[in-house]
Amino acid sequence: MDLRASAGDARRAARRLALSPATQRNAGLEAIALALEARRAEILKANQQDLETAGGMVARGELPQPLVKRLDLGGSKFAGVVEMVRSVRAQADPLGRTLAATELAQGLRLFRVSVPIGVIGVIFESRPDALVQIASLCLKAGDAVLLKGGREAARTNQVLFEVIARATEEAGLPQGWVWLMETREEVRELLALDEYLDLIVPRGSNEFVRYIMEHTHIPVTGHAEGICHVYVDRAADLDKALRISVDSKTQYAAVCNAAETLLVHREIAPAFLARAVPALKEKGVALRGDARALALVEGAFEPATEEDWRTEYLDYILSVRVVDSLEAAVEHINHYSSHHTDTIVTEDAQAASRFLRGVDSASVIHNASTRFADGFRYGLGAEVGISTGRLHSRGPVGLEGLVIYKYILEGEGHTVDDFEGAHPRPYTHRPLDLTWQPEDGRGI
Amino acid sequence: MDLRASAGDARRAARRLALSPATQRNAGLEAIALALEARRAEILKANQQDLETAGGMVARGELPQPLVKRLDLGGSKFAGVVEMVRSVRAQADPLGRTLAATELAQGLRLFRVSVPIGVIGVIFESRPDALVQIASLCLKAGDAVLLKGGREAARTNQVLFEVIARATEEAGLPQGWVWLMETREEVRELLALDEYLDLIVPRGSNEFVRYIMEHTHIPVTGHAEGICHVYVDRAADLDKALRISVDSKTQYAAVCNAAETLLVHREIAPAFLARAVPALKEKGVALRGDARALALVEGAFEPATEEDWRTEYLDYILSVRVVDSLEAAVEHINHYSSHHTDTIVTEDAQAASRFLRGVDSASVIHNASTRFADGFRYGLGAEVGISTGRLHSRGPVGLEGLVIYKYILEGEGHTVDDFEGAHPRPYTHRPLDLTWQPEDGRGI
Repeated sequence: MDLRASAGDARRAARRLALSPATQRNAGLEAIALALEARRAEILKANQQDLETAGGMVARGELPQPLVKRLDLGGSKFAGVVEMVRSVRAQADPLGRTLAATELAQGLRLFRVSVPIGVIGVIFESRPDALVQIASLCLKAGDAVLLKGGREAARTNQVLFEVIARATEEAGLPQGWVWLMETREEVRELLALDEYLDLIVPRGSNEFVRYIMEHTHIPVTGHAEGICHVYVDRAADLDKALRISVDSKTQYAAVCNAAETLLVHREIAPAFLARAVPALKEKGVALRGDARALALVEGAFEPATEEDWRTEYLDYILSVRVVDSLEAAVEHINHYSSHHTDTIVTEDAQAASRFLRGVDSASVIHNASTRFADGFRYGLGAEVGISTGRLHSRGPVGLEGLVIYKYILEGEGHTVDDFEGAHPRPYTHRPLDLTWQPEDGRGI
Repeated sequence: MDLRASAGDARRAARRLALSPATQRNAGLEAIALALEARRAEILKANQQDLETAGGMVARGELPQPLVKRLDLGGSKFAGVVEMVRSVRAQADPLGRTLAATELAQGLRLFRVSVPIGVIGVIFESRPDALVQIASLCLKAGDAVLLKGGREAARTNQVLFEVIARATEEAGLPQGWVWLMETREEVRELLALDEYLDLIVPRGSNEFVRYIMEHTHIPVTGHAEGICHVYVDRAADLDKALRISVDSKTQYAAVCNAAETLLVHREIAPAFLARAVPALKEKGVALRGDARALALVEGAFEPATEEDWRTEYLDYILSVRVVDSLEAAVEHINHYSSHHTDTIVTEDAQAASRFLRGVDSASVIHNASTRFADGFRYGLGAEVGISTGRLHSRGPVGLEGLVIYKYILEGEGHTVDDFEGAHPRPYTHRPLDLTWQPEDGRGI
């Protein structure tokens, strides 16, 4: 693969895609859904081969067992992937939307209209469903995309990419809007293609995201690790606290919105831990506690180290700390959290408000599992990832994270000079209830 | 100045500022306006000293004359600066706004609420009014800011900074929310303070913005140069074309939204250039033309080189090219423009649509001067700058460019497990007409 040539093709395809009507992009998405269904057996066969290779790696201790679950497209997951494509198709068109309209002065009207970002590079971990989600979202948003998945999913990704590229080409979309990179060498090469790429989206560990940021001048929105917390307040309902803690940790341990640390108010810690420890143990969770947790439930915990508070296990391990107050919990979270997703369990509405305002994370949650922090569950149709950055998009990123806007100003010969000097014309700056429409009515 | 310590202070101040009510931030802005008025003589004296130094530099050929105009706070400009602060104060509070509300399932409600970005570093050119604008916008948006202005404005900036810091401290705002850097060494140091800075905003030449991007891992939104175009279509009204061309080039030549290149459709070129050349010459504009322009008006042009199409003169110089079609104009602009601001002059609505859709720039304009591309004129109250990036904010950046959002999810003990498996609860994904309110009603 000649990456520079491919990126140039992607740039040209993006120019055409940006001007394509929603009907054409939606037809492309339906073509992807149909092609996935038609070639199900072929895709699952490739996936089975990837799973077998990964199984061998687990046996040799080269890969943690929970990560294998992310690879598997079998069972109900395949139908879920197809449903996701149709869910993206059903979303409102993110392009050509008038985000604001203002009359600047008589006869001078300003519109802010959504447009695609352009060409995006996405590097993601070993989840082949991510490839389909990201490609679908980019197509809907009018962006060309260069994809690189994890090597454990290489065979599955190759087939999925071929299915998507062929289906959309047959549906009349510009060839070259989607590319699959296969080697790390290509990723390194990609990082230097400033002139062709508008955005790079790395998903992975903090170290990986940092590596990408350090080796490119292309803008990056990082989707790094989730060190997510559940804080059980002194006014927590014990049943809710138990269910939310177990769900946040064990519902799917290998993903970034799973909880890694449980903070418990000291007043409720004896009653809560007496129930939570056996419930978590029963699910196979290994517990690491601070001194106070260790003292409360003898023999249940390994001692937690400073390193534990900074660790994304992605596994059946949970660190537990007893805190003196809600403020101490907020402070712990703002210090150790990856600013991803943090939950408070409490029946005290004032305490909830203080937590939701004070915790500086992309998702702050009251009385629900951290696992809800997800594009599909948030109603975005699907997600590019969960951004841990603070620019452009934060938390689960759907279509809105893949578009930007342009300003369109329409006048009647207006000059700035008329608005300055001795007898200046006045600005009106009046909001308008108008949407911008090009003359041919085709949308932007 | 111990920059690391100052940045740490800024981080702490930002945490407090993020939770401050709008009334307090607005009181701070009014205090700034009053203090500027009270200390007008002192500020203008410092400004006069800067102007004298700059005048000497112009005489020695070390600084182009038009750049001196940017330095000058005298005349009506001072009142404009104070008005700008009050205009920012009058803007709606950008914080705590519910940007979206969705019922995910019964009893599970998601809110997207605006919050500050955090700590921002802004490096800007020799315009002391920019310091006041940027500080005011950051305060309103709840962001702490570290500022670095051009050295030609050093004395003015120092006084302005002291006025702003003291006025806001006396108004009860957290000390340390605003800092002024004085040396390039400090800027270099700033670029390494990843842990304290959330965003760096460089304003200046492409080379300068690129230098900043290459030397930091902190996210950057670049405010680089404006290579702006006026395209006079074959269906242009000649009077409008003349006024817009002259205004775009000469109304204020030393700024990024001034035009640098004039493109003229070949059918209208003889009639248009016969009027435009003397009008521009009368304003003191030196013209550089392509071969066809040179042939049309003998002796009026220096020959333009390839380099001219890529140059931001910031001076009374204009390059002129005759093109065969609207498509050729769009192609020239997408190739040479800095994607800042480009105007078409035409009475043909279809042609205007094709231009507005096809030109990939932050501001695309029909029948008005490029000089309108400005935060104040666009009704944003003021501007941090004009972004030439495609992430987070594009074009004139006001308050919206200084905020991000967090997701707030409120449940009743919900777990993801209830929504999966054999008898899953359904997601409703229903838009809600609700705004998020913390229990104490103080806003976020």
